[in-house]
Amino acid sequence: MAARRHTLLFTMGDPAGIGPEILARTLANPALRRDARLAAVGDPEVLERAARHAGARLTLRPVPPEQFDPSRNGAPGIPVVTSTAGAWGAFQPGAPSAETGRAAARAIEVAAQLALDGRATAVVTAPISKKALHEAGYPYPGHTEFLGALSGAPETRMLFAGGDYRILLATVHVALARVSAVLTVDSLVRTIEYGALALRQFRWGEKSGVSVLAMNPHAGEDGLFGDEESRLLKPAIERARASGIRVEGPFPADTFFAGRGREAGVIVAMYHDQGLIPAKMGGIGGAANVTLGLPFLRSSVDHGTAFDRAWKRGASRRPDPAGLVKAARVAIDLAERTRGRRLEWTWD
Amino acid sequence: MAARRHTLLFTMGDPAGIGPEILARTLANPALRRDARLAAVGDPEVLERAARHAGARLTLRPVPPEQFDPSRNGAPGIPVVTSTAGAWGAFQPGAPSAETGRAAARAIEVAAQLALDGRATAVVTAPISKKALHEAGYPYPGHTEFLGALSGAPETRMLFAGGDYRILLATVHVALARVSAVLTVDSLVRTIEYGALALRQFRWGEKSGVSVLAMNPHAGEDGLFGDEESRLLKPAIERARASGIRVEGPFPADTFFAGRGREAGVIVAMYHDQGLIPAKMGGIGGAANVTLGLPFLRSSVDHGTAFDRAWKRGASRRPDPAGLVKAARVAIDLAERTRGRRLEWTWD
Repeated sequence: MAARRHTLLFTMGDPAGIGPEILARTLANPALRRDARLAAVGDPEVLERAARHAGARLTLRPVPPEQFDPSRNGAPGIPVVTSTAGAWGAFQPGAPSAETGRAAARAIEVAAQLALDGRATAVVTAPISKKALHEAGYPYPGHTEFLGALSGAPETRMLFAGGDYRILLATVHVALARVSAVLTVDSLVRTIEYGALALRQFRWGEKSGVSVLAMNPHAGEDGLFGDEESRLLKPAIERARASGIRVEGPFPADTFFAGRGREAGVIVAMYHDQGLIPAKMGGIGGAANVTLGLPFLRSSVDHGTAFDRAWKRGASRRPDPAGLVKAARVAIDLAERTRGRRLEWTWD
Repeated sequence: MAARRHTLLFTMGDPAGIGPEILARTLANPALRRDARLAAVGDPEVLERAARHAGARLTLRPVPPEQFDPSRNGAPGIPVVTSTAGAWGAFQPGAPSAETGRAAARAIEVAAQLALDGRATAVVTAPISKKALHEAGYPYPGHTEFLGALSGAPETRMLFAGGDYRILLATVHVALARVSAVLTVDSLVRTIEYGALALRQFRWGEKSGVSVLAMNPHAGEDGLFGDEESRLLKPAIERARASGIRVEGPFPADTFFAGRGREAGVIVAMYHDQGLIPAKMGGIGGAANVTLGLPFLRSSVDHGTAFDRAWKRGASRRPDPAGLVKAARVAIDLAERTRGRRLEWTWD
């Protein structure tokens, strides 16, 4: 690996949550600093305080967005691209608010713009509060949709990688009883295409393909319980196959992960918990969330803001940075695999 | 452990499937033979042929049901309680039919009657074909309901044990889109009661309790996606708690298994794959299916008949008995824990 070739931009997350602390500890990780150029986007005072609070040995160097130049290797310290200033003092640690939502959102906006300008290979995000984001006037359910809007991406998909499986979600934040109504053959074909495009661009193995999980127990057992397999999944798989995609399924989900799941290129899960139960069996740091559909790489922790554990006193109560370190590791791996190329999400 | 105190009755399963072969290899397992009295129920010729086919060193001793006496330690060989004779020749290996369904069903009937008579502590079942059972005129979706009817049990529940978790299913073979409509507060309270009764009778830890998983992603996130948590799960949990059961939840399912799941006494999953994806992550032999609601213990393999792999030539193609061995291990463990007492499934 060509050391320090790729630039990772970390957003600080909601400043009232554990984001700044886990970010400070991640930025101090010697192995990560050897393998990539690291930079943060956020409020310099918040991050300075988080570094002291978390006991991270770190020299931070505030830089205005327009002056951020990742190729300037000479300057000492880790750059903090200043997306807001003065956030500290405007919020209570542990208490999300319109102020913390605004500060978190500004960091995401600045990071996305720098990545779109080609000044970073990947954006790695710390956790935010949807509620605080809404209070600040940002109408997005999460990072994925927010970054999609900032990038002009028509659609996005959520994929989990870095553990034993690469799991792509066909639906995300949908009530279980509504999953069947939300899915269409068209949306499933698009999800399978995202999987195939990820396999190709991330060079995840020429021989492996996309595996589609069934929605119902035992894949519906020939229609005995549920017809989505015959009505939606099989037609989508056939149409995707006709366009040249190597795709198989629908497979009963319960036996899949201990069986052929380990050899699958990308696994398409029909709903949130079907994909995230196996993705998260490894615990915090077991996998990272990767957004498909953006022109740049984006990875994220797979956990929340943990407001109840943020900014506490005592070394033993420091939040675990393993999830953010894993997100950074996945971003570096994908940056190497894509060689920093702009990503394309149209299947021809 | 008092060696060989408990009697395990193994049914042969569908004779056209892998049941007889994995049963022959399980009966030849020296550690199991040391730890319990083993007996089979089935067709003696089928089991003789399966033992030779599977290379199992085994002396079988056919016994009519009325003469089966598990306390007769002196007689050589493993008893085969004869539930049918002449089944061999009436079917094609690998091809389920009304004949194989009838032979499988007869073995279950005889085993259940012996267990009800107190002549066995546990029934351990090899896989059957629902289709063959139906063709033979038995209208049950599976063992669980069939054994429930034979025992006069008003209801049964399916629990998976023997791996990292003890997972109890609130619904089993239900289309995903119908799970919400099938669940009621009453049925959830009953499921929680089954969990509490299993905890008590199986002595699975005084301090641990029943943990209920949410149905929707992030437990519905305060009603943003799905109201089943507030409409069904929380009222059921409160009602069960009011009757003295230690029960907690609803917990978001995706993060549960790597977190507090390992300390949970019994985990209640709302639907098939929510429980069986984590239960089966360990692969064949990772867990066994235990029926709650019967007066006797019953465990089962967690896989199917595998007709396509049954009765093949060549030692390398012998089916893996790990699932049936695990079911036997779980039965022995529960027999020790319950000391062979008749089980009661009414919460007072």
